Amino acid sequence: MAKTAITPTRAEDYPEWFQQVIRAADLAENSDVRGCMVIKPWGYSIWENMQRGLDGLFKATGHENAYFPLFIPMSFLQKEAEHVEGFAKECAVVTHHRLSPGPDGKLRPDPAAQLEEPLIVRPTSETIIGATYARWVQSYRDLPILINQWANVVRWEMRTRLFLRTTEFLWQEGHTAHATEAEAREETMKMLGVYAEFAEKFMAVPVIQGEKTAGERFPGAVATYAIEAMMQDKKALQSGTSHFLGQNFSKAQDIKFQDQHGQWEYAWTTSWGVSTRLVGALIMTHSDDDGLVLPPRLAPKHVVLLPIYRSPEEKTQVMPYVESLQKELAAQDFAGEKVRVFLDDRDMRGGEKNWQHIKRGVPLRAEIGPKDIAKNGVFLARRDTGEKAGVDRSEFVATVGQRLQAIQDNLFARALKLREENTRQIDDLNELLAWFTPKNPESPEIHGGFAHCHFTESPEVDELFKKHKLTIRCVPLCQQQEAGKCIVTGRPSMKRAVVAKAY
Amino acid sequence: MAKTAITPTRAEDYPEWFQQVIRAADLAENSDVRGCMVIKPWGYSIWENMQRGLDGLFKATGHENAYFPLFIPMSFLQKEAEHVEGFAKECAVVTHHRLSPGPDGKLRPDPAAQLEEPLIVRPTSETIIGATYARWVQSYRDLPILINQWANVVRWEMRTRLFLRTTEFLWQEGHTAHATEAEAREETMKMLGVYAEFAEKFMAVPVIQGEKTAGERFPGAVATYAIEAMMQDKKALQSGTSHFLGQNFSKAQDIKFQDQHGQWEYAWTTSWGVSTRLVGALIMTHSDDDGLVLPPRLAPKHVVLLPIYRSPEEKTQVMPYVESLQKELAAQDFAGEKVRVFLDDRDMRGGEKNWQHIKRGVPLRAEIGPKDIAKNGVFLARRDTGEKAGVDRSEFVATVGQRLQAIQDNLFARALKLREENTRQIDDLNELLAWFTPKNPESPEIHGGFAHCHFTESPEVDELFKKHKLTIRCVPLCQQQEAGKCIVTGRPSMKRAVVAKAY
Repeated sequence: MAKTAITPTRAEDYPEWFQQVIRAADLAENSDVRGCMVIKPWGYSIWENMQRGLDGLFKATGHENAYFPLFIPMSFLQKEAEHVEGFAKECAVVTHHRLSPGPDGKLRPDPAAQLEEPLIVRPTSETIIGATYARWVQSYRDLPILINQWANVVRWEMRTRLFLRTTEFLWQEGHTAHATEAEAREETMKMLGVYAEFAEKFMAVPVIQGEKTAGERFPGAVATYAIEAMMQDKKALQSGTSHFLGQNFSKAQDIKFQDQHGQWEYAWTTSWGVSTRLVGALIMTHSDDDGLVLPPRLAPKHVVLLPIYRSPEEKTQVMPYVESLQKELAAQDFAGEKVRVFLDDRDMRGGEKNWQHIKRGVPLRAEIGPKDIAKNGVFLARRDTGEKAGVDRSEFVATVGQRLQAIQDNLFARALKLREENTRQIDDLNELLAWFTPKNPESPEIHGGFAHCHFTESPEVDELFKKHKLTIRCVPLCQQQEAGKCIVTGRPSMKRAVVAKAY
Repeated sequence: MAKTAITPTRAEDYPEWFQQVIRAADLAENSDVRGCMVIKPWGYSIWENMQRGLDGLFKATGHENAYFPLFIPMSFLQKEAEHVEGFAKECAVVTHHRLSPGPDGKLRPDPAAQLEEPLIVRPTSETIIGATYARWVQSYRDLPILINQWANVVRWEMRTRLFLRTTEFLWQEGHTAHATEAEAREETMKMLGVYAEFAEKFMAVPVIQGEKTAGERFPGAVATYAIEAMMQDKKALQSGTSHFLGQNFSKAQDIKFQDQHGQWEYAWTTSWGVSTRLVGALIMTHSDDDGLVLPPRLAPKHVVLLPIYRSPEEKTQVMPYVESLQKELAAQDFAGEKVRVFLDDRDMRGGEKNWQHIKRGVPLRAEIGPKDIAKNGVFLARRDTGEKAGVDRSEFVATVGQRLQAIQDNLFARALKLREENTRQIDDLNELLAWFTPKNPESPEIHGGFAHCHFTESPEVDELFKKHKLTIRCVPLCQQQEAGKCIVTGRPSMKRAVVAKAY
């Protein structure tokens, strides 16, 4: 059996493999604060690339960035709680504004500095942003408002996992207000489409766009849409959501405007977000038993150059060759940006160095020693397939962008193939339950995949699915209406939903 | 008297003028949360441009971005408080992790969900980042660590003013660890230089680089350096700080490493930061009685094109001309980026529209109507000088980058001239006090400016300066040693400090 850089392998213990990939790639670690992570430079750089890509798509669709307060007065959530069922109350509550030494000389929240009204660290910003929009909007001329915010949010999670579920996480939240229902619905779908485009084009992660069932809606939303992706353990990961909020929030927050005829109307609002969870999706979609595999469009470095020499003489021969190669590569284009090249001349063993870049997922590694220079070439290794070959130098420079695109395309095709091979239309309940029974007792996490089933929204369905730890991920938007029967109740159904185990 | 867009004028009421410029330019507003601001799209876009500029300079000097937790365990600050005098305790304290309905049915912090240890919303991150570095650093090979974080921080301020002093603000904080004192000192000065370069080249704000006196040091620092700028009311605004922390923090946080000889040593650390306060500095340096004036390098839009037509026929003539002009301008370069052009064809009165862009500080405004088209030209207005002239179209396209650079240079020169005209070497105490006596009883805020004085660090100096609301801003780095006498005590002094009223 071939030795792998990551122990355990995916087949041996998928959840632990995930943690070890993160560690080996130096992406993030748990911090001294329960449930909060430290995002290390390599991991943060992936997030920065995601931000840049998404921000470009947001701006191209007419959105602007702004910034709203970290804190939300408790009374705002009180109003929301009266208004919305299922409103989450696990959150960080600020009650004091000073520390002072207590009788024992140790610091404590100063009893004389208790806030009149507690403040909540934002778990999401609908309430505070809505209250602001209520001030901004008077007339239909003030609409639409198309704003996005890049921010940190806090939700008091009991069980946390790096990137997938952390108490504090980074995200963007779009909040828009419109004069008409049609326009707000169009916005909701447009941003779902932007998320799908980002997932597929930048992350090379194929996603299903669909609507959530009533039980899975964002509290207060009229409709919630999501993109869902299949991870390598066949589980689903919800990777982005877009909510049509109707007039529910604008009524609670009093976002009113005078229309062309002088009538007062409530605005129609939307919200939509993706978070650092996308980094988790990226890792679990592409990485292998040697560690992280990165789609080139999000890789902090596209190419690493590894000079090889055994003597000072060889060094004087190798380094100028490698340095000029770096310049030539860095002048090439890939996906509208310059190729990002790292010349790694650190003083450490070559094998260790090479493995570090494998574990960090750098798409292309080029070793260059005296023998390669004699042939005017490089020895090139491709991270996604493991292919290695000598390549002519000028050919390498001329094709580097194409090679990166080939990796990007291959990762997407591979992930799509995995999903297709592990998706089935199922119309029989026993078959469904068999589909979700682990095939290998040693890997209880690995099961069938996605099942497309007819269903009805009913307590019987919920109960049975809960019992078997199954979830309805979404009702895909792209499907033909088709007469069928609910897989649990037998009631008539016109549409299929994606059923899966989920993160 | 000419009517101005902003009421009051600078001369009438400088602090109120500042608020009104912010309002007229739609930069920010107070939020529903005490002391926290909403940064609106135009203001946030200026901050994004600042971020992009600074981030480029940080990366060019070898730094990487990362992200650390929002929360700091109280025990970390306890340790710091034992270690450092003058440690600030006004901060947001999280004590509960859930809201629940109380006996009256209203939400309250759930008494059953009290945290064992309170968490503090970071006022700055030395403690939590230092604790992380302690885990990362074992050997001299792990050093230096050169990391920056873009983040929000919270300090419970009693009196707040938009951008200048807010409870929550956005900033970057660099935190570095080094194997030697010399290297850490070099880093401290390098980043001070980066801040000065950014202030002068991007913000067009001339700054004095200097060292803070002992009383003004960051608590725990061995030395604090700052850049200081003169606002138009002649007051000083500290615009960025760089701290050499010696081994003080590494001892408290146990950041130790084995050197080349196997000896355990404490690391030498630095920290440095600038914040959204820079937006305040920008406003107060350049803006005039008609509103915001923006240096082109930070302007969200460089050029606004204002089509003028009175009939559908004129519109069909004007719009294609303006649209093609926009394309040509947007293909031009300024300061390494493409020219940012906004074609404003909104349906509103021309005068109102034009004044909106004046108040928002767009560097160049070009009006284009049938008469301009007949001459194949545009009618161009320059925001900084108010100059207006007909310009040939192709000449405008060819010179737009130069024109923007001329505005950038003029703003810097104008601000430098103001500082030079309001700076004096003073060696006599009565002269100093007279210098800081308001010249005009109707404008008590406006006074002399900066005084360069010999001084000694002593309680007498502190007391007298406090009485007259004067501060020692810094001891400038660029000065010849020169024998003199302390302006208060008469004791011998070899260096002058900048004395000023300050924000």
